[in-house]
Amino acid sequence: MAPAAIMLAADAPKLSSANTGFMLICSALVMLMTPGLAFFYGGMVRVKSTLNMLMMSFISLGIVTILWVLYGFSLAFGTDKGSIVGWTSDWVGFSGIGTMDLWPGYTIPVFVFAVFQLMFAIITPALISGALADRVKFSAWALFLVLWVTIVYFPVAHWVWGTGGWAYELGVIDFAGGTAVHINAGAAALGVILVIGKRVGFKKDPMRPHSLPLVMLGAGLLWFGWFGFNAGSWLGNDDGVGPLMFVNTQIATAAAMLAWLAYEKIRHGAFTTLGAASGAVAGLVAITPSGGAVSPLGAIAVGAIAGVACAAAVGLKFRFGFDDSLDVVGVHMVGGVIGSLLIGFFASGKGQSDVKGIFYGGGPDQLWKQCAGVFAVLAYSLVVSAVLAFLLDKTIGMRVTEDEEVSGIDQAEHAETAYDFSGAGGGIVGSATSVLAAAQSKKVDA
Amino acid sequence: MAPAAIMLAADAPKLSSANTGFMLICSALVMLMTPGLAFFYGGMVRVKSTLNMLMMSFISLGIVTILWVLYGFSLAFGTDKGSIVGWTSDWVGFSGIGTMDLWPGYTIPVFVFAVFQLMFAIITPALISGALADRVKFSAWALFLVLWVTIVYFPVAHWVWGTGGWAYELGVIDFAGGTAVHINAGAAALGVILVIGKRVGFKKDPMRPHSLPLVMLGAGLLWFGWFGFNAGSWLGNDDGVGPLMFVNTQIATAAAMLAWLAYEKIRHGAFTTLGAASGAVAGLVAITPSGGAVSPLGAIAVGAIAGVACAAAVGLKFRFGFDDSLDVVGVHMVGGVIGSLLIGFFASGKGQSDVKGIFYGGGPDQLWKQCAGVFAVLAYSLVVSAVLAFLLDKTIGMRVTEDEEVSGIDQAEHAETAYDFSGAGGGIVGSATSVLAAAQSKKVDA
Amino acid sequence: MAPAAIMLAADAPKLSSANTGFMLICSALVMLMTPGLAFFYGGMVRVKSTLNMLMMSFISLGIVTILWVLYGFSLAFGTDKGSIVGWTSDWVGFSGIGTMDLWPGYTIPVFVFAVFQLMFAIITPALISGALADRVKFSAWALFLVLWVTIVYFPVAHWVWGTGGWAYELGVIDFAGGTAVHINAGAAALGVILVIGKRVGFKKDPMRPHSLPLVMLGAGLLWFGWFGFNAGSWLGNDDGVGPLMFVNTQIATAAAMLAWLAYEKIRHGAFTTLGAASGAVAGLVAITPSGGAVSPLGAIAVGAIAGVACAAAVGLKFRFGFDDSLDVVGVHMVGGVIGSLLIGFFASGKGQSDVKGIFYGGGPDQLWKQCAGVFAVLAYSLVVSAVLAFLLDKTIGMRVTEDEEVSGIDQAEHAETAYDFSGAGGGIVGSATSVLAAAQSKKVDA
Repeated sequence: MAPAAIMLAADAPKLSSANTGFMLICSALVMLMTPGLAFFYGGMVRVKSTLNMLMMSFISLGIVTILWVLYGFSLAFGTDKGSIVGWTSDWVGFSGIGTMDLWPGYTIPVFVFAVFQLMFAIITPALISGALADRVKFSAWALFLVLWVTIVYFPVAHWVWGTGGWAYELGVIDFAGGTAVHINAGAAALGVILVIGKRVGFKKDPMRPHSLPLVMLGAGLLWFGWFGFNAGSWLGNDDGVGPLMFVNTQIATAAAMLAWLAYEKIRHGAFTTLGAASGAVAGLVAITPSGGAVSPLGAIAVGAIAGVACAAAVGLKFRFGFDDSLDVVGVHMVGGVIGSLLIGFFASGKGQSDVKGIFYGGGPDQLWKQCAGVFAVLAYSLVVSAVLAFLLDKTIGMRVTEDEEVSGIDQAEHAETAYDFSGAGGGIVGSATSVLAAAQSKKVDA
Repeated sequence: MAPAAIMLAADAPKLSSANTGFMLICSALVMLMTPGLAFFYGGMVRVKSTLNMLMMSFISLGIVTILWVLYGFSLAFGTDKGSIVGWTSDWVGFSGIGTMDLWPGYTIPVFVFAVFQLMFAIITPALISGALADRVKFSAWALFLVLWVTIVYFPVAHWVWGTGGWAYELGVIDFAGGTAVHINAGAAALGVILVIGKRVGFKKDPMRPHSLPLVMLGAGLLWFGWFGFNAGSWLGNDDGVGPLMFVNTQIATAAAMLAWLAYEKIRHGAFTTLGAASGAVAGLVAITPSGGAVSPLGAIAVGAIAGVACAAAVGLKFRFGFDDSLDVVGVHMVGGVIGSLLIGFFASGKGQSDVKGIFYGGGPDQLWKQCAGVFAVLAYSLVVSAVLAFLLDKTIGMRVTEDEEVSGIDQAEHAETAYDFSGAGGGIVGSATSVLAAAQSKKVDA
Repeated sequence: MAPAAIMLAADAPKLSSANTGFMLICSALVMLMTPGLAFFYGGMVRVKSTLNMLMMSFISLGIVTILWVLYGFSLAFGTDKGSIVGWTSDWVGFSGIGTMDLWPGYTIPVFVFAVFQLMFAIITPALISGALADRVKFSAWALFLVLWVTIVYFPVAHWVWGTGGWAYELGVIDFAGGTAVHINAGAAALGVILVIGKRVGFKKDPMRPHSLPLVMLGAGLLWFGWFGFNAGSWLGNDDGVGPLMFVNTQIATAAAMLAWLAYEKIRHGAFTTLGAASGAVAGLVAITPSGGAVSPLGAIAVGAIAGVACAAAVGLKFRFGFDDSLDVVGVHMVGGVIGSLLIGFFASGKGQSDVKGIFYGGGPDQLWKQCAGVFAVLAYSLVVSAVLAFLLDKTIGMRVTEDEEVSGIDQAEHAETAYDFSGAGGGIVGSATSVLAAAQSKKVDA
């Protein structure tokens, strides 16, 4: 996120149609990431719980949007209260915001800033859901969402990006959400699964992705939308920092994908599509806080380190026996920590600010700041999320019954199944031959 | 659509690279909605008619584009003839349009306006196809498309958005297509299915969606593209009205999704993915005409009302026995009517114009105007579409044979089937175990 | 690509936030084309080689990005060396590029130009992979990628678009990549398959697309992203040439889809979805070099000619017995040649330059230039690619074993299968009935 001071010149900025249009498109790109995440996660689970996985993301689009309008934007970006949270009563229900009011110090309307940030608030809790595959009651998830964004996301966004927020004022660098989004979601996931426990059959049954093409679709849409997420976080293109972020996003993602694939080839003997997708996401996560601070060569390093580290980290769930079903902790928490801390080493002083990391002649100062941000968000989110899950579990119950889980949460919670290929005749089972294909090859033979 | 007068200042506007670039991206977003619609519909039908459903949308991208260049743009946006239709012979074949000619009163080239509006002309007839699942000859559909856009869409677009069009001059508010797109398509769907009748087995056979992930993909792409559809309809971002439309689009969609899910939980006992997708689309439809006129809180109201009303409306087909296969009438016609009429109540006077609705201290004046627009488009489209379908049915025939319908229209009309999973070995039927997954869990156990 | 001279006015251009933002979004759109291509190709192969097809595209996102940063950008767009290749040592590792350095003669940062062009370098080799379905070792493909972009793509991009490149200086027109991307990839595909040979069972076994919905998803994303590819190639919207390109892209694609469908209806008796998708891509290919030079009516002609010609060309593989598995030669090489040569006939003199084709009163001069560009790229790429494939085949081996190919390359090379529908209960095989659907129809009957 760009420092608000940059444009506070003597004459107030005017609305820039260029930056406003750009930020609207970026907002649409970030919106698309949540469906993308739904497919990424939905493809990874077994066919009997696919729809539940999709719905855990889609419902966030519904719930968080309404809460954001009602009070979330005010809590996150309103006038600072004690460095912990914001509040601007005019923004409740968005009712005091005029269409021509500009975001202070910038050239875009408040509405544009508000809707761009809304998309971040939507995807962050959706990220958590990947750890909870197959086993959480949908009503409990919906209630968790309401509580979690209110008590965790809105304040943490204020810490990191709100004027007056303690981390922001301390100088913690988080361009687009390494702490507020990824460490936050990953730590929350860990907190919840420590409370609710494992899936039935964890480590015993094979739980293969039911559709890797769906996973790759999700990865593709995430990668695409992430450009809006990252480059848009500079809130306009009056200089070259947003473009640098864009370039570094592509570079780190590529490097992480290659690094993950190399790691799994050496450790497990194959280059998998799941590895390519996971590696790409690990790179996207790690460059999210750091991409405005490092050089392109630095971005290669950040991506490669994140790719290897996250590939190693996803094995930990088997070793320690916590069921981080789709590797939210291993990719988002670990990737977010790595990206945030590496700023302390790789900041080049030529990007979003002149802060230099240890490898570029700076002292350890920035690294300590990054540690403070990382640790605070991680600890707060992990503890509060665990407490929320515990309270919900003791009251309405977090998990479906074991029978429902085994026979499939889609039927139990949504009264649907993902696919119905009945009535396909020979088409699915393969005896039918395409009339056209047959005709074509016959013709050329003749 | 923005009133053309706004920028007719003494000095003519110049090309804005910001608005031009924004509108090109918005045009691309709206283009993507038609494939999105294809997947939304294609996932909802049975596997044996999936491809036909996809093709009914894709063919519109082909046919309508060519007609638009040849004469459609001229009919819709040319010089007004009697308030009913336009015509500018220079625009036939786009041949008299120069690359630097600007759309009158705006800062974008005529070509940009023309291609943006083309995308609306493409998706509107494609919307109709959802009501005609499983049973319409592809050649008849293609011919219907040609006739329908020529006789219905191009003139109606002129009524509503063309300078001199009667509804436009009357002051009917339709920001992005509640009447011209959604009521128009929904009423046409009703007209056609009253003529061609039901699917074989309607109300008897279960006709479950064959792929809800495909439905959700369609919904996600529609939601994404709709931002271009709605915010782009202001034709630039020199003020904050486009951004307001963008914000309201997100809000109403979220509210409608939640409202639909609540309705079906109460009535039917489950939160379904199909309900989430349908609710989102209902909200998108309802905010399309109204999003520039209402406040964000108004957008919550519009969305919530549309979500409940459309959820209730889709049951009517079973009660009255018309086979609106994928709920085009229930969602697009009903949602379009609701969104258009609610402007008469919720217009805040602070968005695209100073018109106020009944709840904001205005009189019933705007409501009557909205009623006029709604009724005229609905009646014209319904009647003409039914007549077109009748004529086609009596000449070339609209429906495939009952045998073809039962065995599957994909084979009969397209000589293809959607899927062929033969030769998958154990992969599909599930006995195979991923070498990697097995290796991984073994390693950590060791 | 726009001639660099256009904006070299006395006063140097400043960064345009409008063009910079537009080009970033266009870069994201072009990035999305590679996943889109993966789905387009992945849906067309049999289920046992789907993942390998996806991975051949995705790995290009990884490998080419890193090579581009290290030396590719310098080779393609650095200071000209003998009209054959570029080199600017400051660009190695992107290390001498400042965030505010602008691309000479333009209003966008060097970083933006570099990342936009990177996306072209990624998708070009990925296009080749469609010809190599089912049979190429993944490690050999990765190594081929490294060698091919280094020896073929980077220099050829310099010929066509680099200041000083021989084709650029000769005046060969290639707006967005007819020669450098499509002929280049298509000819390379032909070169490689002549070396590595056919799939087991070619012309004998039916090799039906395993998922046509996945093919259509790919086609939809390609169409969407191609707007960025084509319109973005003008590098900004200070005039109406980029918009003309956008409009012509839509028109030619529509015309080609209709032409291909008409051709196959007449020749084979059915309108297929595969034909619609292939026709659309053929149109996109053909308009890529020509869309800035022709009028909208010219774009209809270009599209229609390409649609018919490519539809006819894809049958040649059966006649001549080369296994161009997914029609890379038939669509990209043939479509690229057609689009490039038709400039010589249809250039209107009113688009990107005042060059006129034969049908618009110009002489054959431009046609000869186009022939030179086409022939040189085609011959160079075909020969060098064949040599590379030969060398790799003789050293590390290009093909998997016949056993691996028959049982499925996904298992052999990636230790995964695309789908696992096991444990779906009645959902997949169709005996289960949706609780909700049943409840709904019962209620309305009551």
